[in-house]
Amino acid sequence: MSFDDLMAYERQTQALSQVAGRLGWDQETVMPRGAGDQRAEEMGAVAAILHERRTSGRVGDWLAAIDDSTLDAVGQAQMRHIRRDYARATRLPGDLAAEIARTRSLAHQRWAEARAREDVAHFLPMLARMVDLKRAEGAALAENGDAYDALLQDYEPGATAAGLEAMFGALRPRLVALRAACLERPAPKGLSGTFDEAAQMRLSRMLAKTFGYDMARGRVDKAVHPFSSGSGDDVRITTRTAADDPFNCLYSTIHEVGHASYEQGIDAAYRLTPLGQGVSMGVHESQSRIYENQIGRSRAFTGWLHERMREAFGDLGVADADGFYAAVNTLKPGYIRTEADEVQYNLHVLLRFDLERDLIAGRLEVDDLEEAWNARFLADFGYAVDKPSNGCLQDVHWSEGLFGYFPTYTLGNVYAGCLMQALARDLPDWEAHLAKGDLTAVTGWLRARVQQHGGLFEPRAVIAQACGGTEPDEGPLLDYLEAKFGAIYGL
Amino acid sequence: MSFDDLMAYERQTQALSQVAGRLGWDQETVMPRGAGDQRAEEMGAVAAILHERRTSGRVGDWLAAIDDSTLDAVGQAQMRHIRRDYARATRLPGDLAAEIARTRSLAHQRWAEARAREDVAHFLPMLARMVDLKRAEGAALAENGDAYDALLQDYEPGATAAGLEAMFGALRPRLVALRAACLERPAPKGLSGTFDEAAQMRLSRMLAKTFGYDMARGRVDKAVHPFSSGSGDDVRITTRTAADDPFNCLYSTIHEVGHASYEQGIDAAYRLTPLGQGVSMGVHESQSRIYENQIGRSRAFTGWLHERMREAFGDLGVADADGFYAAVNTLKPGYIRTEADEVQYNLHVLLRFDLERDLIAGRLEVDDLEEAWNARFLADFGYAVDKPSNGCLQDVHWSEGLFGYFPTYTLGNVYAGCLMQALARDLPDWEAHLAKGDLTAVTGWLRARVQQHGGLFEPRAVIAQACGGTEPDEGPLLDYLEAKFGAIYGL
Repeated sequence: MSFDDLMAYERQTQALSQVAGRLGWDQETVMPRGAGDQRAEEMGAVAAILHERRTSGRVGDWLAAIDDSTLDAVGQAQMRHIRRDYARATRLPGDLAAEIARTRSLAHQRWAEARAREDVAHFLPMLARMVDLKRAEGAALAENGDAYDALLQDYEPGATAAGLEAMFGALRPRLVALRAACLERPAPKGLSGTFDEAAQMRLSRMLAKTFGYDMARGRVDKAVHPFSSGSGDDVRITTRTAADDPFNCLYSTIHEVGHASYEQGIDAAYRLTPLGQGVSMGVHESQSRIYENQIGRSRAFTGWLHERMREAFGDLGVADADGFYAAVNTLKPGYIRTEADEVQYNLHVLLRFDLERDLIAGRLEVDDLEEAWNARFLADFGYAVDKPSNGCLQDVHWSEGLFGYFPTYTLGNVYAGCLMQALARDLPDWEAHLAKGDLTAVTGWLRARVQQHGGLFEPRAVIAQACGGTEPDEGPLLDYLEAKFGAIYGL
Repeated sequence: MSFDDLMAYERQTQALSQVAGRLGWDQETVMPRGAGDQRAEEMGAVAAILHERRTSGRVGDWLAAIDDSTLDAVGQAQMRHIRRDYARATRLPGDLAAEIARTRSLAHQRWAEARAREDVAHFLPMLARMVDLKRAEGAALAENGDAYDALLQDYEPGATAAGLEAMFGALRPRLVALRAACLERPAPKGLSGTFDEAAQMRLSRMLAKTFGYDMARGRVDKAVHPFSSGSGDDVRITTRTAADDPFNCLYSTIHEVGHASYEQGIDAAYRLTPLGQGVSMGVHESQSRIYENQIGRSRAFTGWLHERMREAFGDLGVADADGFYAAVNTLKPGYIRTEADEVQYNLHVLLRFDLERDLIAGRLEVDDLEEAWNARFLADFGYAVDKPSNGCLQDVHWSEGLFGYFPTYTLGNVYAGCLMQALARDLPDWEAHLAKGDLTAVTGWLRARVQQHGGLFEPRAVIAQACGGTEPDEGPLLDYLEAKFGAIYGL
């Protein structure tokens, strides 16, 4: 039967895709430093073979022969993914895909040089080339629709720029106001001391288990950038340590455990099939963010964590559990998205979303990017960008052609806000569990409501179903942030 | 041009093959224990894609279109490998290959159970099935030639059972006599003490560097079984430790460094091409064995190693450097091939070579294997096998269908004997270098004479050229063993 043949073929493709992910993990953790060039060629070969499989005429023949209406719901969901992926892969001309891959490598290098030299002009010609190529990609994928919307589908199937714009437009004024109000108040006292890095890693592994990460199907290592990698029975995470900042390590771990638990939690029946991965970047980020923030930075959980950290490190330089909670949830003036707290983080994202839409639409030229960035930053944050590495050169994404990726960060936060509201309704004593370090109920709720489904439902539908049928919007996130930070800062 | 297109395709195939090797390394070192089933499917998918590429009609079309005489010597050598591999891959019927892969997995499991239970009969039906399949494979590959010779080509291109039989026939009586004479003499005193396992690993890494292993293009980890994995710029080794036996760790490391240095030493121009791996198992084993034995267990080098071990572990329980040398080179009665010394090792191999030829030729049925094994063992070793795990169930090879693999171990020792004779002639002061722990000259000689060529020449030709044109035979190995062990045992 054609469907079984197609699924056997898809399992091989998914398996090879998992293997490519494992190579990425290897490169960032254990690869010998002299192996980089050879590894690049190995990864390139795997990518080329994957592309060839995904655009193979064999798949087209199967798709033409299969009548989806004869399949059960799971089979139809598999077909939805396969048909969509095949349409996208075959719509993109092969020479355009190759040119984007080539430019990505060059632009990434140029970006790193420009950032090190604080020299925006050094990066702009390559960025201009990349923007041109992504406009062309968007146009090819969109057929007669919007190019940016077409690019968005790679990260968040079903999302539109118009929908995100409405959501983000509602977020921005209240976040700007909350941020300003908090920063007018005295900053809470931070931790002091030095924090043994081996002890940070031990605590990281303990936290990973506490949050339900299955160590028999994963592992925790150190890497320059924290990440989660893999699906199913082999989902690995990395974290990093700094002797003066244990929160960087611990909350990076909890964030990645959120991503990894999603992948580990998907129904085993979907393993190595199109349904066997997290359904979108936004839903993925909802899991990492709810683990990290709504759960991990809650008053209830930080009370428990405070004790664990005192056991590990002795005196932390804060008066009590309330002081610890405030130290975990401090707003600091800064420039860098990845270092930002829950309130300011989304303002960084909204800025990028507006600028990248303008770049792709041709309303903004790359020559004017730095000025546009700096003007918007001043408007939202109240102080000027001091150097390009703190401004428009800080993120890797555009150099790699990842236009449409940024908004999924804030969409994930919005989804996390909705999920937390529903979770608290379904589990009224959630804080009592967290105060004891028992996360079984809350992570179990997320597994049952979101994680197990993998790619079975569309992204928005997964969140809406988990929330008892309520369509997701920005309200719960805003209410949560205003209540939480209002209390901490005495607003 | 067709040749360039074919080589681009071959580079992708070689890259994917390297990736498969990396998965094997991952599985034995860092893979989460719960990931085994998924990993098996991932490896199966990579193997299937590799098989599809190797038997693709595209390759056949290229091979038909290319006139090798228009290519330079390197191009012609590439074509020799590609033509040979394609002929072998396409001669083997696809359903036979799949049935062998399936049986390998089942037979391996059955063998492990049988060995644990000391129950030969439990393994025999699966072994019989595997022998039947390998007979069929040999017949398909040989067309009208000898089936065992055809199987040999997977491990040692150009070798024949008749040639090996002549060589091994000359080895056996002198090895049996040398073994018996040594074991009649008092055994040298062994090491005593306990040997910190972390210190063994530190010494292992130091030894790896001393033998020229490039740590920037490799790494040393612990695993259940020592192995070397990868080619070019990413060649990793593993070793193991036991608190009461530091030689197991250190000489496993040196052995694997020999394999790894061969792969690291191949001309960088051949990277990710058919010439970019060691040319045969026999030549590979010649490198691991000459590093381990002729160099690593020499009087000169052990004098230096004795000092390093005293620094690491304190008193070793032997009187002096001569006592240490004797402890490194002790013959002990035993049953197990992998634990055997330089003299007895080859007797274990010769036994397996004769039995496996008889199995494939149909002169021996699996029901009679245990009796045949035990009779031959008694004849060569002078005492009876006490249980199957010390006899015909000790090795994994036959359960995996690796008929034709065993003789390459002894062929490698014979090659190492020839190479050491030539090396000593070319570098008369080699022992003075080794006594100082300076292995630059000897490993440089091996790199220039053997390792750099990769697959450029046929296996025997590489050894003959390295030896100044002398065709390899068993004479130098026998002379070396009789001189060395005659001196140690005072024969």
